[in-house]
Amino acid sequence: MHRRIAHPVEVTLFSITVRDHVMVAHSFSGEVFGPAQRLHGATFVVDARFKRVELDQDNIVVDIGLATQELRAVLADLNYRNLDEVPEFAGINTSTEFLAKHIADRLADRVRAGALGVGAHGLSGIEVSLHESHVAWASYERDL
Amino acid sequence: MHRRIAHPVEVTLFSITVRDHVMVAHSFSGEVFGPAQRLHGATFVVDARFKRVELDQDNIVVDIGLATQELRAVLADLNYRNLDEVPEFAGINTSTEFLAKHIADRLADRVRAGALGVGAHGLSGIEVSLHESHVAWASYERDL
Amino acid sequence: MHRRIAHPVEVTLFSITVRDHVMVAHSFSGEVFGPAQRLHGATFVVDARFKRVELDQDNIVVDIGLATQELRAVLADLNYRNLDEVPEFAGINTSTEFLAKHIADRLADRVRAGALGVGAHGLSGIEVSLHESHVAWASYERDL
Amino acid sequence: MHRRIAHPVEVTLFSITVRDHVMVAHSFSGEVFGPAQRLHGATFVVDARFKRVELDQDNIVVDIGLATQELRAVLADLNYRNLDEVPEFAGINTSTEFLAKHIADRLADRVRAGALGVGAHGLSGIEVSLHESHVAWASYERDL
Amino acid sequence: MHRRIAHPVEVTLFSITVRDHVMVAHSFSGEVFGPAQRLHGATFVVDARFKRVELDQDNIVVDIGLATQELRAVLADLNYRNLDEVPEFAGINTSTEFLAKHIADRLADRVRAGALGVGAHGLSGIEVSLHESHVAWASYERDL
Amino acid sequence: MHRRIAHPVEVTLFSITVRDHVMVAHSFSGEVFGPAQRLHGATFVVDARFKRVELDQDNIVVDIGLATQELRAVLADLNYRNLDEVPEFAGINTSTEFLAKHIADRLADRVRAGALGVGAHGLSGIEVSLHESHVAWASYERDL
Repeated sequence: MHRRIAHPVEVTLFSITVRDHVMVAHSFSGEVFGPAQRLHGATFVVDARFKRVELDQDNIVVDIGLATQELRAVLADLNYRNLDEVPEFAGINTSTEFLAKHIADRLADRVRAGALGVGAHGLSGIEVSLHESHVAWASYERDL
Repeated sequence: MHRRIAHPVEVTLFSITVRDHVMVAHSFSGEVFGPAQRLHGATFVVDARFKRVELDQDNIVVDIGLATQELRAVLADLNYRNLDEVPEFAGINTSTEFLAKHIADRLADRVRAGALGVGAHGLSGIEVSLHESHVAWASYERDL
Repeated sequence: MHRRIAHPVEVTLFSITVRDHVMVAHSFSGEVFGPAQRLHGATFVVDARFKRVELDQDNIVVDIGLATQELRAVLADLNYRNLDEVPEFAGINTSTEFLAKHIADRLADRVRAGALGVGAHGLSGIEVSLHESHVAWASYERDL
Repeated sequence: MHRRIAHPVEVTLFSITVRDHVMVAHSFSGEVFGPAQRLHGATFVVDARFKRVELDQDNIVVDIGLATQELRAVLADLNYRNLDEVPEFAGINTSTEFLAKHIADRLADRVRAGALGVGAHGLSGIEVSLHESHVAWASYERDL
Repeated sequence: MHRRIAHPVEVTLFSITVRDHVMVAHSFSGEVFGPAQRLHGATFVVDARFKRVELDQDNIVVDIGLATQELRAVLADLNYRNLDEVPEFAGINTSTEFLAKHIADRLADRVRAGALGVGAHGLSGIEVSLHESHVAWASYERDL
Repeated sequence: MHRRIAHPVEVTLFSITVRDHVMVAHSFSGEVFGPAQRLHGATFVVDARFKRVELDQDNIVVDIGLATQELRAVLADLNYRNLDEVPEFAGINTSTEFLAKHIADRLADRVRAGALGVGAHGLSGIEVSLHESHVAWASYERDL
């Protein structure tokens, strides 16, 4: 049995999203992955969505130039790499959903470090989506 | 007057989405449908999104191979059919939004029956979107 | 530290979305905008999403014909204009996120005025997304 | 054995393309069609491409407003119909590729009749593409 | 100086295209490739376009079911592989454009072997496009 | 009367395409443009396609890094500008199709000047497409 609420939680919410991509090799461990246990690769088209409840004094969610630059910087640490050889990911299945969280968390670090500008401290959340093909994608959303 | 909350509910949430399509004929009953009261058809490009709060022990939301297979199985019951002649839909307007719910509910049945694997019991929700054209789509989301 | 809830709020929710576009000129005020302080322009591909908790008696969220027509009417007030010269926007940065709110609010006005039909009074919310390019978009969601 | 030319034919060529869609029911005759022999349906997202060698005196290929209007008019004759019951198509498999030709030919009729403006007499060709899903489309190109 | 022809070559041409994808790892040799000299990976969304001058007796270009099946079979030989370790590609830069030709040539082999049906012998050409990201793709076209 | 050839010209042809975008303001002169005679704007998503008959010694059409960089450089001259005030375009309708030619010609200049590398001298043609919305785009193709 499911409890149903009459109306969803009322919210007013702004967001902006910027898109970039990253090209990596990796392999997975576990029978569930079938042929993807072999070393293979993927292009991930990455959408980083920044949310906030009210716009800042410039009437924006966040400086889209800085958002684009910082997403690119986060992806640069992964781009053109074999993730199986990245020490930080040793023993980890770098699934699309895991990478969505990894990228969202690194973006959150940068927001907190001020890299997206002072106004970015008013952001309420980040959602990162990774498109691995035209028929499959994953996402992770978190608070800030 | 609307009550506004200062911050949206804090969540941490993963999802994966798989895409397939189905081609059906149908007609609608009711003046609101205008020329769509005539027998016509649609391609629905169907996105099935599976959500969960924490990843499973393989570091994934759900086995994407099984998710793809079960979505295809659910759509196979509708594909290349005239929905006006499907007994289950007798007297029902098989609108895009209704079909989104129908497909989500059938996927939920399969999750509960174990067809998406044992790990899928950790899923928290399903969202199904049906794109009926490049300028219109519908969605339905529900808990699991 | 973030408070984490074990499961997101349980909801059952339908939506339909219609897409149109608008082509405008404008300029921005503020150093954060860099070269976009110059008069330039944008095509905004606009997605208007209408939400409700239960379908109406015709088994739909809203009359998609009326939704399309009213979105077009709202956009017609902006289309082929220099927003810097629209009195309503004097002194305002007509950012993508601001315009998403503007369009959502105008659609909400039309819902309340009955322009989307009597059934539209059952709508629970509107979300408007504006795609300004293949790599950037903004959205605003609000209750009804 | 194939004759290979060292360089493709040199051309200078302009085009504009407009997109619309149509929703139809139909069935196919012939074992090659498998389950598509049953009455089913499709949304066809239709791209009509108009080509010419030199731009007209307004610096355009064709009036995009008229092109959009005439494509819509051609599609209106098919929209929300069961093509099996259209006398013109009696005994014909209304395949995606056949419909691409049908639409291109009707557009060519309208160009010749002057419906796309006087300048449209300088058009050199039409290409029509019909997207039947996210994974399949067909096209037909012809001279004018 | 370029020779310009008054009108492009007159053609009447049908095509159908089917889409699938493949996920591979590889590395490149040559300074021009920069960081892509490292082992990395890609998702290639693959469009296989089949062309012919007149439709067959079923009013189609080719059996779309067989086209889809044979494209999948060709891609299966590459899918979830490290192309650096495929003997056929030893010492070869498996660039996107090279892979487009490889896939087109394998499809041509299958057409000639009858795998796409007897009617497929009337095909005049194949074009294969590989999308490596949302901002880059390659294609190769050849006769049959 | 049109001459029809039994088979299209036989070709073997490679291409790569890179995508970027530009945001401009402009107005048009001429009744055919209707409300677009007013100052308005557009985002143009720009696809630059480079063609050649045989791959170079690195097994590529052109250095995709240089192609991306030079497309960006060409667009930088237009980006965030009011084209009505660009001296080069004085008295010219900067239609989507005209801009496609302008960008293609500037890219051709850069190819000839060696900016895309020595290998780029083997390119046979360029095609530039500008998407002005989700329902309209234009293209121009030329030899090199």
